[in-house]
Amino acid sequence: METDTITAISTPIGEGAIAIVRLSGREAISITAEIFKGKNLNNVDSHTIHYGKIMEPQTNEIAEEVMVSVMRAPKTFTREDVVEINCHGGMVAVNRVLEIILAQGARLAEPGEFTKRAFLHGRIDLSQAEAVMDLIRAKTDKAMSVALKQMDGRLSGLIQRLRQELLETVAHVEVNIDYPEYDDVEEMTHDMMRVKTKEVRAEIEQLLGVAKQGKILREGLATAIIGRPNVGKSSLMNTLVQENKAIVTEIPGTTRDIIEEYVNVRGVPLRLVDTAGIRETEDIVERIGVERSRKVLKESDLILFVLNYNDEITDEDLKLFEAVSGLEYILIINKTDLDQKLDMDKVKELAGNRPIITTSLIEEEGVDELEKAIAETFFTGDIDTGDMTYVSNIRHIQLLKQAKQALEEAMEGIEFGMPMDIVQIDVTRSWEFLGEIIGDTASDSLIDQLFSQFCLGK
Amino acid sequence: METDTITAISTPIGEGAIAIVRLSGREAISITAEIFKGKNLNNVDSHTIHYGKIMEPQTNEIAEEVMVSVMRAPKTFTREDVVEINCHGGMVAVNRVLEIILAQGARLAEPGEFTKRAFLHGRIDLSQAEAVMDLIRAKTDKAMSVALKQMDGRLSGLIQRLRQELLETVAHVEVNIDYPEYDDVEEMTHDMMRVKTKEVRAEIEQLLGVAKQGKILREGLATAIIGRPNVGKSSLMNTLVQENKAIVTEIPGTTRDIIEEYVNVRGVPLRLVDTAGIRETEDIVERIGVERSRKVLKESDLILFVLNYNDEITDEDLKLFEAVSGLEYILIINKTDLDQKLDMDKVKELAGNRPIITTSLIEEEGVDELEKAIAETFFTGDIDTGDMTYVSNIRHIQLLKQAKQALEEAMEGIEFGMPMDIVQIDVTRSWEFLGEIIGDTASDSLIDQLFSQFCLGK
Repeated sequence: METDTITAISTPIGEGAIAIVRLSGREAISITAEIFKGKNLNNVDSHTIHYGKIMEPQTNEIAEEVMVSVMRAPKTFTREDVVEINCHGGMVAVNRVLEIILAQGARLAEPGEFTKRAFLHGRIDLSQAEAVMDLIRAKTDKAMSVALKQMDGRLSGLIQRLRQELLETVAHVEVNIDYPEYDDVEEMTHDMMRVKTKEVRAEIEQLLGVAKQGKILREGLATAIIGRPNVGKSSLMNTLVQENKAIVTEIPGTTRDIIEEYVNVRGVPLRLVDTAGIRETEDIVERIGVERSRKVLKESDLILFVLNYNDEITDEDLKLFEAVSGLEYILIINKTDLDQKLDMDKVKELAGNRPIITTSLIEEEGVDELEKAIAETFFTGDIDTGDMTYVSNIRHIQLLKQAKQALEEAMEGIEFGMPMDIVQIDVTRSWEFLGEIIGDTASDSLIDQLFSQFCLGK
Repeated sequence: METDTITAISTPIGEGAIAIVRLSGREAISITAEIFKGKNLNNVDSHTIHYGKIMEPQTNEIAEEVMVSVMRAPKTFTREDVVEINCHGGMVAVNRVLEIILAQGARLAEPGEFTKRAFLHGRIDLSQAEAVMDLIRAKTDKAMSVALKQMDGRLSGLIQRLRQELLETVAHVEVNIDYPEYDDVEEMTHDMMRVKTKEVRAEIEQLLGVAKQGKILREGLATAIIGRPNVGKSSLMNTLVQENKAIVTEIPGTTRDIIEEYVNVRGVPLRLVDTAGIRETEDIVERIGVERSRKVLKESDLILFVLNYNDEITDEDLKLFEAVSGLEYILIINKTDLDQKLDMDKVKELAGNRPIITTSLIEEEGVDELEKAIAETFFTGDIDTGDMTYVSNIRHIQLLKQAKQALEEAMEGIEFGMPMDIVQIDVTRSWEFLGEIIGDTASDSLIDQLFSQFCLGK
């Protein structure tokens, strides 16, 4: 097990009231004690906080006034000795403290290395570690709730149970083959195997069935707003943003710009695509060109297509209908406060079975219906993050699909009457795929790669 | 004294490993205890850390996995009970925790309110509080060092000593006037008063003498690079940035963009003005127009004016000479690797007594000399942040100037033989101006205004 001492700045970069330099490893406490003017940290109790100053060892100058938290293994985030140095929030000051610690022999942590150690020391499994990152990146309450449950081990528990069932089946087969003389072990028949694999496959299918929702909860529903100039696209955007608190503006003191394109519509996090562009030029197509906008539309989970009630259908509208054909969209007939010039029969014909909502955004009419339609496009009924186990991570979804595929190959083998020891190869593969989700059968390079996507200091 | 419980997010906004919600006030601990699943925080020792979960009180759902630091008054930042809730670094999660705490009856802190409480409770004075903010905003090691010393009370100590001397003088006069019968109190003569006021004025002058340096250490030397197209302005900028590590890129994992225009030239922090513009268009004038660039030049502390050794002086050059006349600039004759076409005699005549440095940036020649010239423009000899007390804050400089002015008026009064009780009015005014620096005679509205410039959560 790695035991060298790692360190990093663990708070976001920027001007803030508090910045933290974190250390983990065998010498975390002794290194800090050497440069700390205050109590002797080597002798303090675990989980205690101490006021003092970090000193520049060469010059004996004060480098920063700090509060130091000392936490001894094993009850820590990494299960190693952990020290957190709580600095005034300046970048220069916190950087100086980091440099002094590095000069004392600690090593700069790789991104995610603290969490990786928690994983390597067995405190959390891989899916829980990934949930830590999801939690940090969560854009809505529900995304956070999904991540928290995953972090708490709910997905891990389910995966472990499925793996256990597969393992028992395989073990059963092995016993039959290796010890045919053991009469007290029931022989694993094709029928029994069929039942078992079907059961597990059904559970995987259920997980995959809500995976799209999970992914949307996690990443937001990529939503594009299209329509000819002056049909009301920016009114629509402003309405969505105003009616449904833009997610980050709730945090007092933040600028709106950062992620204001996320809005929460009845629990569905919409990620409004290219909002800046639309606000400025009123037209996504005009701004990014036809080719790129086609691509944006293809990558959207939902398109809000706005028509003008006060205008006839134009060639341009028809082109847009063409561009969105086959895609998920809601048709919005705006400006119903003005006279009807739009041929609604033709619109209905063009829209096929897509939802059509009439609105007068300027009069704030039809907004409720629109929001209901948005929510219903992806969720039938309420989303219940309370009871559901959501798989939200692409990697997990991919592995679940592979596990399911392997089980289906096993089932085919059974149908063809293949010998048990051949069938069990596929079952074992399925067991391995599931194992990769929680990191049981994951390779070192996969683990390295996963943790490297973490932010620094976590 | 205020005692309601305030709370805020105290780490910078962004994705990081750790985010902190801080509480301070009478109910800081009890409020946290109510929503914390883990130990009963009401009974834990001061300065201890506890693992647990923050619960949503209505739904009893887990809102976040946290480490809670409990610190009881008076040994805390604010001298009140302080709780720091250490969350996973996501914005949604930390925001949810903040909302739950607000719902429990804590009040959202104003910017700077934690530090203001430290001031109101007498833990630090006003100049120390301002130093806390300077420390956070410090752009170089030396700026940080100045702020740390000020925070440590060095400036406060000096100001208090000067005030004490003035106070004694005034008290002396008062005793003479009110109790003329006290023979054992020496009479304050015009001579004695002249000596005292001169002494204090000299010390204030010394402080003001290095104030420009202090201000530069704190804010960086606003530096503009000008010259005709293709004389080598962006080469110069790149050289400065590369030779002298751009200040923030030392912090691993940060993007260069944030404040890369700060470079540290031999201890002098240069704040390169409008670098993005220069890099893109190679020309500040072209980009922002003549009027605005004149303004930029006027607001610069230093101008680096580049000429081409391989070209004759043009009308445009002459216009630039005109624009910088009367301003602080260094003339850089670049491209000495090419043939001389520049009339150096004429250049010397135009430059007057300004430093002229010849460089070949492409050959990396002359860079040392240039850096030396930059450093010497503002500092004679080394800057010694170790021994010097620097006044770096505009507010302090202004008050020192006013205090000095009042003393000079007192001295004039002495020369004119004004009665002592008139002279002492000016001395008292001087004492009051000095008091405003440390917050002793500062008005409530001034204090409110000062702290409101702090960042949230500090």
